[in-house]
Amino acid sequence: MVRIALLGAGRIGAMHAANIAASKRATLRCVYDVHLAAAQKVAKTHGAKVAPSVEAALADADVDAVLIASSTDTHVDLITASAKAGKAILCEKPIDLSIDRVEQCRRDIEGTGVPIQLGFNRRYDASHRGVREAVARGEIGNLQQLIITSRDPGLAPMDYMKVSGGIFRDMTIHDFDLARFILGEDPVEVFAAGSVMIEPALAEIGDVDTAMVVMKAPSGALVHINNSRLAVYGYDQRVEAFGSKGMVQSENLRSSSLRRWTAHATDAQEPLLHFFIQRYAQAYLDELNEFFDVVADGKEPSVGFEDGRKALILADAAWESLRSGESVEVSYD
Amino acid sequence: MVRIALLGAGRIGAMHAANIAASKRATLRCVYDVHLAAAQKVAKTHGAKVAPSVEAALADADVDAVLIASSTDTHVDLITASAKAGKAILCEKPIDLSIDRVEQCRRDIEGTGVPIQLGFNRRYDASHRGVREAVARGEIGNLQQLIITSRDPGLAPMDYMKVSGGIFRDMTIHDFDLARFILGEDPVEVFAAGSVMIEPALAEIGDVDTAMVVMKAPSGALVHINNSRLAVYGYDQRVEAFGSKGMVQSENLRSSSLRRWTAHATDAQEPLLHFFIQRYAQAYLDELNEFFDVVADGKEPSVGFEDGRKALILADAAWESLRSGESVEVSYD
Amino acid sequence: MVRIALLGAGRIGAMHAANIAASKRATLRCVYDVHLAAAQKVAKTHGAKVAPSVEAALADADVDAVLIASSTDTHVDLITASAKAGKAILCEKPIDLSIDRVEQCRRDIEGTGVPIQLGFNRRYDASHRGVREAVARGEIGNLQQLIITSRDPGLAPMDYMKVSGGIFRDMTIHDFDLARFILGEDPVEVFAAGSVMIEPALAEIGDVDTAMVVMKAPSGALVHINNSRLAVYGYDQRVEAFGSKGMVQSENLRSSSLRRWTAHATDAQEPLLHFFIQRYAQAYLDELNEFFDVVADGKEPSVGFEDGRKALILADAAWESLRSGESVEVSYD
Amino acid sequence: MVRIALLGAGRIGAMHAANIAASKRATLRCVYDVHLAAAQKVAKTHGAKVAPSVEAALADADVDAVLIASSTDTHVDLITASAKAGKAILCEKPIDLSIDRVEQCRRDIEGTGVPIQLGFNRRYDASHRGVREAVARGEIGNLQQLIITSRDPGLAPMDYMKVSGGIFRDMTIHDFDLARFILGEDPVEVFAAGSVMIEPALAEIGDVDTAMVVMKAPSGALVHINNSRLAVYGYDQRVEAFGSKGMVQSENLRSSSLRRWTAHATDAQEPLLHFFIQRYAQAYLDELNEFFDVVADGKEPSVGFEDGRKALILADAAWESLRSGESVEVSYD
Repeated sequence: MVRIALLGAGRIGAMHAANIAASKRATLRCVYDVHLAAAQKVAKTHGAKVAPSVEAALADADVDAVLIASSTDTHVDLITASAKAGKAILCEKPIDLSIDRVEQCRRDIEGTGVPIQLGFNRRYDASHRGVREAVARGEIGNLQQLIITSRDPGLAPMDYMKVSGGIFRDMTIHDFDLARFILGEDPVEVFAAGSVMIEPALAEIGDVDTAMVVMKAPSGALVHINNSRLAVYGYDQRVEAFGSKGMVQSENLRSSSLRRWTAHATDAQEPLLHFFIQRYAQAYLDELNEFFDVVADGKEPSVGFEDGRKALILADAAWESLRSGESVEVSYD
Repeated sequence: MVRIALLGAGRIGAMHAANIAASKRATLRCVYDVHLAAAQKVAKTHGAKVAPSVEAALADADVDAVLIASSTDTHVDLITASAKAGKAILCEKPIDLSIDRVEQCRRDIEGTGVPIQLGFNRRYDASHRGVREAVARGEIGNLQQLIITSRDPGLAPMDYMKVSGGIFRDMTIHDFDLARFILGEDPVEVFAAGSVMIEPALAEIGDVDTAMVVMKAPSGALVHINNSRLAVYGYDQRVEAFGSKGMVQSENLRSSSLRRWTAHATDAQEPLLHFFIQRYAQAYLDELNEFFDVVADGKEPSVGFEDGRKALILADAAWESLRSGESVEVSYD
Repeated sequence: MVRIALLGAGRIGAMHAANIAASKRATLRCVYDVHLAAAQKVAKTHGAKVAPSVEAALADADVDAVLIASSTDTHVDLITASAKAGKAILCEKPIDLSIDRVEQCRRDIEGTGVPIQLGFNRRYDASHRGVREAVARGEIGNLQQLIITSRDPGLAPMDYMKVSGGIFRDMTIHDFDLARFILGEDPVEVFAAGSVMIEPALAEIGDVDTAMVVMKAPSGALVHINNSRLAVYGYDQRVEAFGSKGMVQSENLRSSSLRRWTAHATDAQEPLLHFFIQRYAQAYLDELNEFFDVVADGKEPSVGFEDGRKALILADAAWESLRSGESVEVSYD
Repeated sequence: MVRIALLGAGRIGAMHAANIAASKRATLRCVYDVHLAAAQKVAKTHGAKVAPSVEAALADADVDAVLIASSTDTHVDLITASAKAGKAILCEKPIDLSIDRVEQCRRDIEGTGVPIQLGFNRRYDASHRGVREAVARGEIGNLQQLIITSRDPGLAPMDYMKVSGGIFRDMTIHDFDLARFILGEDPVEVFAAGSVMIEPALAEIGDVDTAMVVMKAPSGALVHINNSRLAVYGYDQRVEAFGSKGMVQSENLRSSSLRRWTAHATDAQEPLLHFFIQRYAQAYLDELNEFFDVVADGKEPSVGFEDGRKALILADAAWESLRSGESVEVSYD
């Protein structure tokens, strides 16, 4: 049994807590949150203890691993402290909004030997992973074009948006990682364009709600990502990989296979699964199961700190490109 | 150039006239209709003559062939007269509502050597024909189940319904023929059930508007046909052939490939093509082209008098079954 | 916590055991099977006891409910004994192959007041249930035609087939129940046709592997069911409900949303989920959750003994029709 | 009857000739081609005259209009000469590969009052046009993202590629026009990336075979175009318009609605229509019909010289961006 301390008991922390509690392979040992009430609520629901502090949670010899689901600005400190305490880590994305802090964190945890898995949940989705696997086994020949459509069903509150690091670090970062995952190589050029078309207040904080990215990989493969903060028809998550021998697509999922035929539309499908909690429910479970393999069996995490660092580098490059209007060459050193 | 006399200038006659006129391979020589105005209108539109009588049309040495699109009760007489006049014949379905009259006609035209093509338009549809071809080349192995869905977008007027011969002779007859076409063999047992669920007045004339048929072929293959006189979402025309090696389906067609995504439905497709004139527009052209091959090049019609006779036998069996509640054994002798 | 005795530890019993064990609402108290090793294996996997006999299991005061997943011929005795022991019952379908025994069982358990839920798992499938709900709220107006396609991915061993009661009692029984569920009324006429097209040995035992059924409901609604014991493309489970205002369909499910494009086929979808364990995995969970509601909260089972009895009456009528070639009037008294 | 002189009798010229000849509204008066044999073949097929020279064709008082389908480098001279001869013009795209020559042509024909329609055939496709119409009537609210996928089923010969002007002027030019058509406004920023992944010889002539474009419109709407010279699954032509109220897509078309189910793939669709001649067959007819309206009824062409000029400006901007790695601001003056 993997004994887990949950650091951060907000929406996504609560989801992870429920998944841990439902698993036969793990127990939720304790919960910490800066908001005591949030920690108490999650702890009570699943019969876990409330940790009075991060230090207490990390000092607990009955804690094997931590799941970091707190606000982004705390990730680096928690990763560092957890690594030094010898606890295996599953951390929600992004590592941090500042690449300097990420680099510092990398140096700080060097040599701790603690496994760190990063919560890029989409890598665990059966359909997206199916695209990667088809590419990896050469089913579509040389990958030439990769197109990722990623649109949210609604905007987060402005308070969140202000500290989100902007669309590329907050939202596109998933797509940057997914692109690297499917490409099997690291993009070396990034171009980004963006507009404020949905929430005018975003203009005041220098952010955009509508974005398009083009990247080039060393092989010459081209990647397109498009993002919107608001798709009225729901959380739109599609991937298309095109190559010399064909194409594979990962299409949207729905809650049922119902089709409707009326005088106005035929073969209409159900609404999309609402948002990431629903759309990637199974992916979150599979992610957690890999983490249990990491902690219990010494498996290497399939997505780790370095992936988080590289995705942030791409996000930073996208911001630079958006501002300069130029394609930005990316170095990962 | 195949020179054609059109007998019958109603809705479907007018459509054939336009197709003939648009073809480089044929000319519309003359038009006859019991309603002179109808004949005049079609003739004028396409620069053809009005024939004062059927006899005059058939006596015209510049007429190579006749297209019979008049009311069903005239078909047998027109077929017989045309055959005796040595004119090649393309006749709309059904041959007649009475199998006795059809048998008499068969005897009457025996030995005339005139080619007769029957207007079972669905055999010429690329998708339905694709099913037949897949079956014929063994793509799905042994055909075990054939399912035909055939629903009209609206009821014909009651005046027409009263002389239509009932749903099996008027509407299902297309499906009986399509079943024989795809099966490649003749059903030997027919069961039919029916209800009046749309137009109560049909009950008074002993007809139904909702029907289901099950047939068995000598090979053991089972066939299901379902019919409705009114599908609010349009003219629903589907075929599914299931066999030992797989399945092929002929799906509905639409006027465009547009898909719509809203908060209420996703990936909704366009309305179906309205009715047979639209849905089978290309099939009618291909049917006519085969007829030109028949007349000009001596090709054997791929669907002829015998097919019309057998489809009517199946329709009669369906009526008998509907009334008796028993499966009816079919003999084609 | 609902404490459950599992009677029968074969394939489906093992699945139920795992679902019970994974639930926070129930515990697997004990397992009984005529094959001790099977009981031991399932019991050990989930930390349950092995019951030495059915009597012992039913005498256990710490057992609240039984889940009957043993062979069909034992269902009636187990239902009767469990009901008399005052244990709530979830019984796999069918109740029995003999309507006389089912009627006797009904009389025997009368007055015990024990809730009995029947394992018609398809009623719990989100897509099939979505069809029922659309019909129930009038979304498609008057239901006029219901079409159920139900094909297995492979034949059971002949040893099983010999005691299965034949295709209608073993396989179609699910479809008879699903039809009643969606119709919201009981069919009053049944016609069935069948062929042996897959496994010749079935002919020797008087069974068929390919079947088509047509039923009529009191409202006039017509139902078609088609069954095959072997679809090479997998477990084909579709429902289509057609009415005066439109149509709803429940389409097949797949393990992922991947689509493939090659020179030979475009937009090809993934294979279907293998068989009932995979296809109805969520339905089995939801069925079990309803059972926990029944046991713990006194909820009325949404599908019970009477539904099992009526489905068997329809299956018997289908056999009678298959043999006589006549549509059979159904009485449920 | 519109009397047309065809200038250029290659593949696309021959197609137009057949369409003109089949129309009731027009006659093919004469055909000119620098290769006499090509002109003779087309002329003979449709019973037209061979024009000994362009001058002769334009001097023919029985010619109302010209259809220019010759090689791109002749378009400007032919447009100028035809305009001065007072003949209505339907010219294949592009006007020319040099914007300077296009500007000169614009000045040269100013004041002639001759209508010029440009052969951007995709504007006439029912599905793509359906997207434009949905956008224009506000069905998807504010257009925020437009995504055009345009991939050819095979490369043209290198001899053609060398004089094609490169991928943006030869192939993407259709997509630039389609983007303008659907946007209803002119892009003001263009970014382009490209790779040689299919035909290495293209690198030697400075061209690419794999390209991605991002454009921004004055409204802030973002456009993405992706192109490939070789999609093994066929001519891939899709459009997706995303807005504040929903999304519309124009999907690929196929020769039939057949679907196939095997052990390896389910619901697989037919291959795509081969190439532009097949995919846009109806669009070419509708384009021609508009031209007949232009010539016979004085209708304003819906797509004209100015559209050809603007598409070329966008193509030039794309080349500039590809070379500089910078987003290029576009001016249409």
